[in-house]
This record gives sequence, structure tokens and C-alpha cells, in this order.
Amino acid sequence: MSQRNAVSVRLAERSYTIGISTNQLLEQLDDVAAQVRPWKHAVLIVDQKVESIGERIRERLESLGVRSDVCLVPSGESSKSVAQIASLWESMLEHRTDRKSVVVAIGGGVIGDLAGFAAASYMRGLRFLQIPTTLLAMVDSSVGGKTGINLPKSKNVIGAFWQPHAVCIDTSVLESLPDREYRSGLAEVVKYGVILDAKLFEYLEANQQAILQRVPQVVQHIVQRSCELKADVVSADERETTGLRAILNYGHTFGHAIEATTDYGRYLHGEAISIGMTMAGQLAVDRNLWTRSELERQTTLLSGLGLPVRLESNVITSRLIEAMRLDKKTEHGVFHLILPTKIGQVESRNDSPVDRIMNAIDCGR
Amino acid sequence: MSQRNAVSVRLAERSYTIGISTNQLLEQLDDVAAQVRPWKHAVLIVDQKVESIGERIRERLESLGVRSDVCLVPSGESSKSVAQIASLWESMLEHRTDRKSVVVAIGGGVIGDLAGFAAASYMRGLRFLQIPTTLLAMVDSSVGGKTGINLPKSKNVIGAFWQPHAVCIDTSVLESLPDREYRSGLAEVVKYGVILDAKLFEYLEANQQAILQRVPQVVQHIVQRSCELKADVVSADERETTGLRAILNYGHTFGHAIEATTDYGRYLHGEAISIGMTMAGQLAVDRNLWTRSELERQTTLLSGLGLPVRLESNVITSRLIEAMRLDKKTEHGVFHLILPTKIGQVESRNDSPVDRIMNAIDCGR
Repeated sequence: MSQRNAVSVRLAERSYTIGISTNQLLEQLDDVAAQVRPWKHAVLIVDQKVESIGERIRERLESLGVRSDVCLVPSGESSKSVAQIASLWESMLEHRTDRKSVVVAIGGGVIGDLAGFAAASYMRGLRFLQIPTTLLAMVDSSVGGKTGINLPKSKNVIGAFWQPHAVCIDTSVLESLPDREYRSGLAEVVKYGVILDAKLFEYLEANQQAILQRVPQVVQHIVQRSCELKADVVSADERETTGLRAILNYGHTFGHAIEATTDYGRYLHGEAISIGMTMAGQLAVDRNLWTRSELERQTTLLSGLGLPVRLESNVITSRLIEAMRLDKKTEHGVFHLILPTKIGQVESRNDSPVDRIMNAIDCGR
Repeated sequence: MSQRNAVSVRLAERSYTIGISTNQLLEQLDDVAAQVRPWKHAVLIVDQKVESIGERIRERLESLGVRSDVCLVPSGESSKSVAQIASLWESMLEHRTDRKSVVVAIGGGVIGDLAGFAAASYMRGLRFLQIPTTLLAMVDSSVGGKTGINLPKSKNVIGAFWQPHAVCIDTSVLESLPDREYRSGLAEVVKYGVILDAKLFEYLEANQQAILQRVPQVVQHIVQRSCELKADVVSADERETTGLRAILNYGHTFGHAIEATTDYGRYLHGEAISIGMTMAGQLAVDRNLWTRSELERQTTLLSGLGLPVRLESNVITSRLIEAMRLDKKTEHGVFHLILPTKIGQVESRNDSPVDRIMNAIDCGR
């Protein structure tokens, strides 16, 4: 397969292209380098798990005349920390990074968020390029310009809106992704189906086995459709001011709280979101906004894709609620939750009583 | 005196007003509070030196129904650190700061830069209000949206462009400012004269004694004129992309390097800028861009206002050059320096040989 497609994120002077290909990463990089002129220096911020991909990219850039420095970052959510960003800032200075340098993020969502915030904050903003290497990053975090790090008690609470200059996706790099991480990314794909696209949801239901077997054209289809859906939302509401972009947060207020109360160690992001979507779905059913049969379709699909839908029993409900209160979507103590009304459609509701929320949390255990 | 004036910073949807008054700070705050609606929570980031001003503002805000938390910050440049911003982020989270909260900076340039970056980076950006309490902050750092912190080896290298929602200046708070700090602020006022406004420069020459005695209407005049000049430059080139805004950097590439090589402890910012302007002026004269007699006028004025114009002898020239290479204005090793051509006019030059720069550094010692 050598198909190369492009999805546009339309944001006036900050518009950019998401290139999607199979086995053509270096060719995509050449295209980007032809646009970024003059490009004399790059800082590659690379997840240590994909060091070899980083090395291939570094060699290609050097061959194009771009002095390239590599900063390796340990894998995992714990790298989205104050200590890690401070260490990156120091490394960038040592590598004589200046305003004309370009930051290149090579890795999953953690690396994209971290490198994006480094790009946004170093010398008040450098250009940056996203090369996502996990499914989660391809379909979600590399698109849309949200960057950031965590504080011990709250996820993504520090950061910036900072759009990449381009996103280069090569789905062939997913071949070596561990199963659990691959499935974690599928949670966000299911999310797009529930919030925006009943046809995508049906496609996922019909192609579960091909998806789990990572059939290349099926993977390319779900990545591209997810990017298109996200790009449209981001183009319409870049900074989450009109409320439209907030729908992407379906399952995330619950999910972030699950990650926080389990110290970001028990669940991968997509796994927490899968449980969070189940809780949000349960709340929607309890409030007569959604039908039980559609919730069951969601639960069946998530489970079929190997994702958890029940919270482990030792997580205390009141601690989860407390963590939800610290979420960015919670304003002056009022929970703003995205709740489904049918497959392909959601609403933002700020009128869910705490006892109903607690009930939805406990319902599945 | 109860005059209240306003200067506009015109930046499309990010436009804002700088209010300038004497003895009417709380009234200005009322005006701002009438615009920021609903305003339920404020985080006051306060220099410990002006804790009492912070307390007056906190009381006024509480009386207006705004829950207000105070974060006291130690005085001095060393507070613009990674450790301090990390501590502020944690405090803001503890104070249940959310997207609708407003950050209020109360203090000098250090506090404005630090609080501004906290506002820019917390939950990807909160509204913020500048209440400058030093002359330097009133005439320079509180206007224009540059925020940031230092790394040990480079000043302001981490930060964001983040415009305040409003700036409230009450020149009467300068009455208690120590002499040395007051004079430090005058360096930036002299800078505006040299780079943009020969008439202001002549006013400063003619009114040195009244300025040093802090005659209220004279202080109000120089603050207002400085704000007008800076507002015009910032309105025309918010993010330093056209080169216009770079003229504000006159004396600053030298000055920042002086601060860095003396560990931010020997000179106040304005003192370093005064020496930096003298070096830049010397370089301009050496390169036949400027006349010796105008350089002497600049030196005489700076000295007359009690500012240093010579670098102390134990600073090593090559270390200063090395620090200048790390400056944000230096791109891929090429120095971009602002050099005067006559009083009221400067040029950006990137063709100054290193040996001439070293000569200009050593000339005054």
C-alpha cells in the first residue's frame, strides 16, 4: 500500500495538514521540509520506546541539511511532569535551540503533549511537528493543538493551545505497537462514533475482527475518519469557547478522574476513557436522555475491542468525585458533562445532580 | 491630583486599556470588575514587598463578591524560576482556580512576568490583570503581553505571549519605592526617548531634578508617554514578527547578558539596561551610525538620573558574548542588535562583527 491522504485543519493563519500514509513517513517528512524554509535546526523529542524511528528521522533531517538534536524521554504518563518539562527546557537551551528551530514530537500522546508545551513555551513559541507513533496519538492527541503536562493532582492542568505546523501519520508504525496500547487508542475511535458519526460506529461494530487484526486498509480508514471528525470540530472551535469542542470530552471528565485517583498507573488513557464513556452513558440512561439498548451497543463494542467498561472495586467513589471537581471542565463547582442522546449525537449538560453521578459511577461495579 | 487617563493597546479581540491615575487604584479596580462579569474568583499573585497593597485589593475584591486568594512571592529576579512557577501552579490548584478565575499580578516586573506566565499556562490560559507597583513595570513590563521565567543560563527564555485583560496603574504607589528601584525604571523611559521620541528625551534632560524628586505630574507624564509609545509598538507588532517590536530591545541583548553573567544579583534590570544602552551606543558610534555627541547626551542623562553606565571590571567580556549568543534575539549565531542612528531613531543590524562588539563592551571600562 502506498496511499497518501491529507486532512486539513482549517484555522486561518494557523491552518495545517495531517498527512496519512502507510510506509511513507520519510517522504512525508521531505514534503514538510520543503515548506519549512529555512530549516536549519530541529529538536527531536522522542519516546525512548521508538528511539529507532527517531533515529531514522534524525538521519533523514541531517541528510536534508537540518542540524538535529535528540532528547529521549521515558515512556509513560509520568513524563508529563514539571520535572520533565524543566529538563527539556534545559536541554533545548544546551542544544542552542532558537526561534527558528523546529520541535519534532515523535511518540504517543504523552510525547506530543509534552513536546507541544515545550514548543509553545520555549522563547514564547516555536514551530512544531507531530509524528504520532501510537493509535491514540494519531486519532486524537496529535490533532488540535492541545498541549500540556500534569500536576500530581490534576491531569493536563498546565499547558497551552499551540497548533502544530504539520502532522505526519504513518500507520505502518502501528505494527509494532503492543496490543494493549493499540486497543487503548480504539476507545477514542469509538468516542467519535458515539458523539458524531453513527456510520463510523456501525463500521466499527461490523469490522471488529479486522480492526483487532490491524488490517492495513481498515486501520487507515479509522485513522483518517477520526482525523476528519476531529479536524472539523477543532476548525469550528479551536479554543473551546463556543462549546462545540467540548463534545470531544465525552467520557473524559470521568476518565481523567479515574486516571488521577489511580495515580496514572493502573489504566492507560483509552482504558480510563472507555470506563468513563460507560459511566457517562449510564448517567444519560438514568436521566432518560439515552436508551438502554444504545448504551448496551456501546458497552458491547468497547468490550469486543478488548477495552474495560467497569472500574475496579477499590477506587473510592467520593475520591473520584473530588478529582472530577478539579477537572478543567468543572467551573466553580458545576460539572459540565457530555451525555449521549443517540449514537452519533451528544449534549453538554451542567444539571446532573452529584448523587446521580455517584450512582452512575457505582452502577457498573 | 485625581486625574485619570487611559491608553489603549489595540490588538483586535485582545485589545485592552491601561488606566493611569494617582491615588485612585481601587476606583480603577471597580471599573475593571464592572467589565469582568461574572467574576467569582481571583488569584492575587503579590510581591511580598507590597503585601499591604495586595491586602487592600483583596479586601476590595471580596467586598465586590469576588472570592480572592493571595499567593505571596519573594521579591527579586530569582523568583522568575521553574521552582517558583511550579509552586504557583500547585497553589492555584489548591485554591480551586478554574477557567473563569482571574489572575491579578500585584508587584513589579518579576511578578508581572511570573503571574502572566502562570495565567497563560494554567488550564491553557486564564484572564489576567496587571497592577504594577514599580516604575519599571508601569512603563515597560506590564504592557505588551510578554510573560516568562528564566533558566539559570538565560533570561526570559521560557514564557508566552499573553495579553492582560487590563492594566491598572496608580503612580502614587511609587512614593514608597526605594530610590534605586525608581531609578532603575527610568532607564526604560530614557530608552523610549532614544528609540522613538526625541521630544521625550529632551523633556527628561530638562526635568532631571523634578523626575528624581518624583513630582507627581512629572511622574504621571513620563509614565503615560512611555505607555503610549509602547502601546503603539505592541499594537503594530504584537509577536515581534515584523521587526518593529524588536526596537524595544535596545540595550537589552547586552543588558540581559550582563544580568546573566552576574547571576541576576549585581544589577537591577534597569541598571543593566543602562549599561547595555551605553554599549550599544558605543558600538553604533564605532560603526559610524551615530554621533559621539549624541552618545554623550545619552550617557550624561543616564548618569544624571543616577544610573550606571560602566560595567564593573570583573565581568569577563568573552563570558558576556557567550551569554549574548543564548539571547532569544540571536538566531543561529547571528547577533541582531538595535543601534541608534539619532536620538529618536534606531535600526536593527545583524552585521556587527564580534570583535567590534567586544570592543564596545570594553570601551567604557
